[in-house]
Amino acid sequence: MRIGILGTGTVGQTIGTRLVQLGHDVKLGSRSAANEKAAKWVGGAGDHATQGTFADAAVFGEMVFNCTGGMVSIDVLNQAGAENLKGKPLVDVSNPLDFSRGFPPTLSVCNTDSVAEQIQRTFPDARVVKALNTMTAALMVNPAAVPGSHDLFLCGNDADAKARVTELLRSFGWPGVLDLGDLTAARGMEMILPIWLRLMGTLKTPMFNFHIARA
Amino acid sequence: MRIGILGTGTVGQTIGTRLVQLGHDVKLGSRSAANEKAAKWVGGAGDHATQGTFADAAVFGEMVFNCTGGMVSIDVLNQAGAENLKGKPLVDVSNPLDFSRGFPPTLSVCNTDSVAEQIQRTFPDARVVKALNTMTAALMVNPAAVPGSHDLFLCGNDADAKARVTELLRSFGWPGVLDLGDLTAARGMEMILPIWLRLMGTLKTPMFNFHIARA
Repeated sequence: MRIGILGTGTVGQTIGTRLVQLGHDVKLGSRSAANEKAAKWVGGAGDHATQGTFADAAVFGEMVFNCTGGMVSIDVLNQAGAENLKGKPLVDVSNPLDFSRGFPPTLSVCNTDSVAEQIQRTFPDARVVKALNTMTAALMVNPAAVPGSHDLFLCGNDADAKARVTELLRSFGWPGVLDLGDLTAARGMEMILPIWLRLMGTLKTPMFNFHIARA
Repeated sequence: MRIGILGTGTVGQTIGTRLVQLGHDVKLGSRSAANEKAAKWVGGAGDHATQGTFADAAVFGEMVFNCTGGMVSIDVLNQAGAENLKGKPLVDVSNPLDFSRGFPPTLSVCNTDSVAEQIQRTFPDARVVKALNTMTAALMVNPAAVPGSHDLFLCGNDADAKARVTELLRSFGWPGVLDLGDLTAARGMEMILPIWLRLMGTLKTPMFNFHIARA
C-alpha cells in the first residue's frame, strides 16, 4: 500500500520505518519538501521511502497517518489539503500536549472534545481513526517489546476505515484491537495521557502499556 | 481501627461492609443522622456498624473515606468539619462526574486540577490519599474478582498516610499499590474515567481493571 505520514518526529519515523519493512511505499511529509530529518530518514529507510510536503504525502497515501502534535494537527492537515484526504483512512496518533507551562504538559483540548473529533469536523470527508496514541512509538510497531497481554485502543466513525487500519495494525504484531466505538471515545483515549506521563515518571521507562484485565 | 465513611452509595456501603468484615468499627455518615439507606446498611452489617451525620463519621474515624460524588465532596467535607479531619488520612475515592448533560458524564474539574487537590487545598490539615477511584466498587474490596494482575493506583503528599492506607488496602487483598507520587497525580487518576466509562460500555460489564504491562 502507499502510505503518507505527516510528521517527521519519532512517531512518524518509527511508524514509517516499520511500514517500509513490511513492504509498503511510504512518503514522509513535512512543512518543507527538503526537510533534513526526513532526508536522513529516507537515506536510511530504503528504496520504498520518500519525502515531500504534507500535501505531497497526503496525495501519495491511500492511507494517511497524522503523527504531528495535537496542537498543530489542524494546521498541518490544512497544509495537507482536504481534497487530498478525501475518502482516505486518516489514522490520528496525535495527543494535544501543551508544554507551554512546562512539564508535565496539560491537554489543549479535553473532556468535551478531542483532537480526533476536531480533525473529523474540519475534514468531514476524511475517515478518521484514532489509534496508537496511548503508548510510546517503539511499542506501537512492536507490541512484543512489552511481554504479556496489553491493549491497543481504537475508535472512529467509519467501520470500513477501522477494519483497514486494524488489518494494518495486525501486521505490526497486534493480535487485535479494542474497538471503543465512535470517535467520541477519542476523548478518553487522549485523556489517558496524564496518567501515562505520570507512569513513565514513576516506572522510569516509557516501555509499558495499558492492559484491560477482565472478569 | 475506627473508620468514618462519608457517603451512603454503593461505594461507601461496599467499602464499609468489607471493613466491618475485617474487624474494624465503621460509622457511615450522611447528611441526616437518620438516613434510611445508612440505617438499612447498619441493620445488615453487624455490631461494628453505626451511622451518623458526616460530622459524626469524621469525629469517629481515625481514618476517613470520602465516598461522595466529586461535585459535592467539598460541601460534604465542610459538613464533616475541618477540625474533625485534622491530621487524619482522608482517602478520596471520588470522581468529578457531571451528569447534568446526560450520559456519558463530563468531568467538572480536570487537566489543571483535580477533586483530590481541591480537597487538600480546602482542608490543608487532612492528609489526602487518592485511591480506588479507577474501578468499580465490588473490585475495590475484592481484587480477586478479576483474575490475573491488575493495578491499584494511589497518590498523596503525605508518606505516612499513604503507608497506612496501603496497609489497609493490602488487607482487602491487593498485593500492593502503584504509588504515583504526590497528589497532582490525581489529575491523571480522575481523567482515566472517560475511557473507563467507555470500556464499561464496550465490554458490557464494570468488572475490569487497568493493568500496567511492563517491559
